[in-house]
Amino acid sequence: MSEIYLDYNASAPMDKRVIEALIPFLEVNYGNASSSHAFGRRLASCVEDSREQVASLVGGSPGGVIFTAGATEANNQALRGLFHQNGIGSGDLVISAVEHASVRNTAQWLNEREEVGLRIAPVTAGGHVDLHAFEELLPGAKLVSVMGVNSETGVINPLREITQLAKEHNALVHCDVTQMVGREPFNMSELGVDLVSLSGHKIYGPAGVGALVVSREVRKLIEPLVLGGGHESGLRSGSLNVAGIVGLGAASMLANEERSEDMKRLSCLRDQLFFGLHSSLPEVQEIGDISKRVANTTNIHFAGADADAVMANMRDIAVSNGSACSSGAIEPSIVLQQMGLNRTEASEALRFSLGRFTTVDDIDTAIPRIVTAVQYVRNMSGYEESYETS
Amino acid sequence: MSEIYLDYNASAPMDKRVIEALIPFLEVNYGNASSSHAFGRRLASCVEDSREQVASLVGGSPGGVIFTAGATEANNQALRGLFHQNGIGSGDLVISAVEHASVRNTAQWLNEREEVGLRIAPVTAGGHVDLHAFEELLPGAKLVSVMGVNSETGVINPLREITQLAKEHNALVHCDVTQMVGREPFNMSELGVDLVSLSGHKIYGPAGVGALVVSREVRKLIEPLVLGGGHESGLRSGSLNVAGIVGLGAASMLANEERSEDMKRLSCLRDQLFFGLHSSLPEVQEIGDISKRVANTTNIHFAGADADAVMANMRDIAVSNGSACSSGAIEPSIVLQQMGLNRTEASEALRFSLGRFTTVDDIDTAIPRIVTAVQYVRNMSGYEESYETS
Repeated sequence: MSEIYLDYNASAPMDKRVIEALIPFLEVNYGNASSSHAFGRRLASCVEDSREQVASLVGGSPGGVIFTAGATEANNQALRGLFHQNGIGSGDLVISAVEHASVRNTAQWLNEREEVGLRIAPVTAGGHVDLHAFEELLPGAKLVSVMGVNSETGVINPLREITQLAKEHNALVHCDVTQMVGREPFNMSELGVDLVSLSGHKIYGPAGVGALVVSREVRKLIEPLVLGGGHESGLRSGSLNVAGIVGLGAASMLANEERSEDMKRLSCLRDQLFFGLHSSLPEVQEIGDISKRVANTTNIHFAGADADAVMANMRDIAVSNGSACSSGAIEPSIVLQQMGLNRTEASEALRFSLGRFTTVDDIDTAIPRIVTAVQYVRNMSGYEESYETS
Repeated sequence: MSEIYLDYNASAPMDKRVIEALIPFLEVNYGNASSSHAFGRRLASCVEDSREQVASLVGGSPGGVIFTAGATEANNQALRGLFHQNGIGSGDLVISAVEHASVRNTAQWLNEREEVGLRIAPVTAGGHVDLHAFEELLPGAKLVSVMGVNSETGVINPLREITQLAKEHNALVHCDVTQMVGREPFNMSELGVDLVSLSGHKIYGPAGVGALVVSREVRKLIEPLVLGGGHESGLRSGSLNVAGIVGLGAASMLANEERSEDMKRLSCLRDQLFFGLHSSLPEVQEIGDISKRVANTTNIHFAGADADAVMANMRDIAVSNGSACSSGAIEPSIVLQQMGLNRTEASEALRFSLGRFTTVDDIDTAIPRIVTAVQYVRNMSGYEESYETS
């Protein structure tokens, strides 16, 4: 049976146009972008073009773009780079309870090792930051780190309100927009966000490359995480991954240009998928506030059907339970539990994430296979009976 | 005029076989290597193959390979990952005076921020670690970080003696072998080296990927630099750059298989280059101990000819003065000054580094162009006269 990939939030296939843009930097345009000779200067100039494309995607300034190996490094760099004596000094860090592990674990590290006060803002049942609770955590905070869109639910955070509240308390705002760019409009300058993290492979670009984009003010305060030759104006050392950077630039440009069309199409496909499942199976429910959600994602609760078991029974359909990094973990999704689902419910949820290359055919083919797998697992676990007799 | 690339130590063009190996991971084999579905599992299996290839290149164990974004990150990870309370605790760090900036600056950071004692071992006029001075620095040292081969001079350090002395003082040994692998035999297990760093783009692999390879003992002690989803057994988070990792694996395999042939050929070409220049120009001298040097590198002092000026007068020949990262720096090479050259002498040195794709024709064509540029600069600076009348 043909395989169907519905796990774009874990990693998207590369766009052919991105591959075409970067291939010359594998095949013919070699050298070190820091070299002063012609080979180096040609590469450096392409890196600057990419810097503009990335800045443009997030409404930042090209001078604020720091290329990294991905969003995880960017998140580490953002948090660890600011909390030091000559940076933002002492003061607390506020994160949401459903941040990506790279923010959660870095925050925890800062708390344990550097004695940075850590406050964790709860989320609502809908999956966004609870603004009232958030506001109460702000006095004394120096930095707020909140994701734009949650990877597991697709729920969009109220960034305007979050940024406004943070600014009222003179806290800087870091925003992991890895799952937001290319899916929802986002402009850091307009919102007043000070730092954003993003990744190549979530927007049809290469893996192993991402960026932290910072405001002019933050640029003066932030320290590097990776030390060495002083690349990226001293903020991130290491020979530049030019092919990756060019790919990220091309992917950023496409994400900007095609977001609106992509999302119009994907929102139809996503709804086709959910309604197809919903009409064939009882007790199937979307998780999170569907009125504030990106168009490509649906996280679905199948009562009585363990997600791992469902996945094992539809091996040709690629979906996920929890984030890819914690695949294989025994604990059900922290994100869903923070939204109020109990452990059993959280373990019965599957995330479907669609993308630029998902077709109507993919969805038509996937629906009956998913239905069969869920029915099989429900039957095996005796759920069907208890449902029908209730 | 055709361009000639003699700057392989800054960055090597990719080998076509490496490109062929990684292209499928851009074009067709997509997904996240951490995902539990078939797409993810296929990638994870290729990552494990690459881990074996990298381990085999350095005589390490596949389980000790931590993929990073490059040697700079690996060096940061090695040094910063070990000095913590439950790691090697308090104790000193010994580095050589000619280490790469990613080791020097990280060591400096540890010294200033974490109060790690830092001792810097001088090098001889030949460019290797001065073993007598080194031994005196060892009492109380917990970690020694010494490069295998210097990127600027190609000089090979006496790793056997260094490791043996370090072990006598119970210090762990980290070795940056970025410029050694593929050029000289190296085997960490045999030598007793505990950690090694390496980079893809110095061995005809992709940029943006490298590895830290650690011994079983170090694996238990070392902490991650980049926190998050717990990839690489918790030692380096971030979605895996599978294409890059596969490329690094392929490049490692080729470096293993072709080192001996490559170096036989390059040592002839390198000598052809030097003797060509030497026979056409007075006062031309190789820098460093040429009896203990990798086959692809020669760093040449052209008395009376400022290196920047020479490079500006042969724009179609790509060479370097100092390491690529510090191109544009005003200070002449620290490495050469540490070897006893004065500032003027250090500013009159050019590094020529050859590689797998350098041809006899390249060298034949380059020699007269370099000669002309050096003569021109010497004439402009009035050197020729002073030489001929002396």
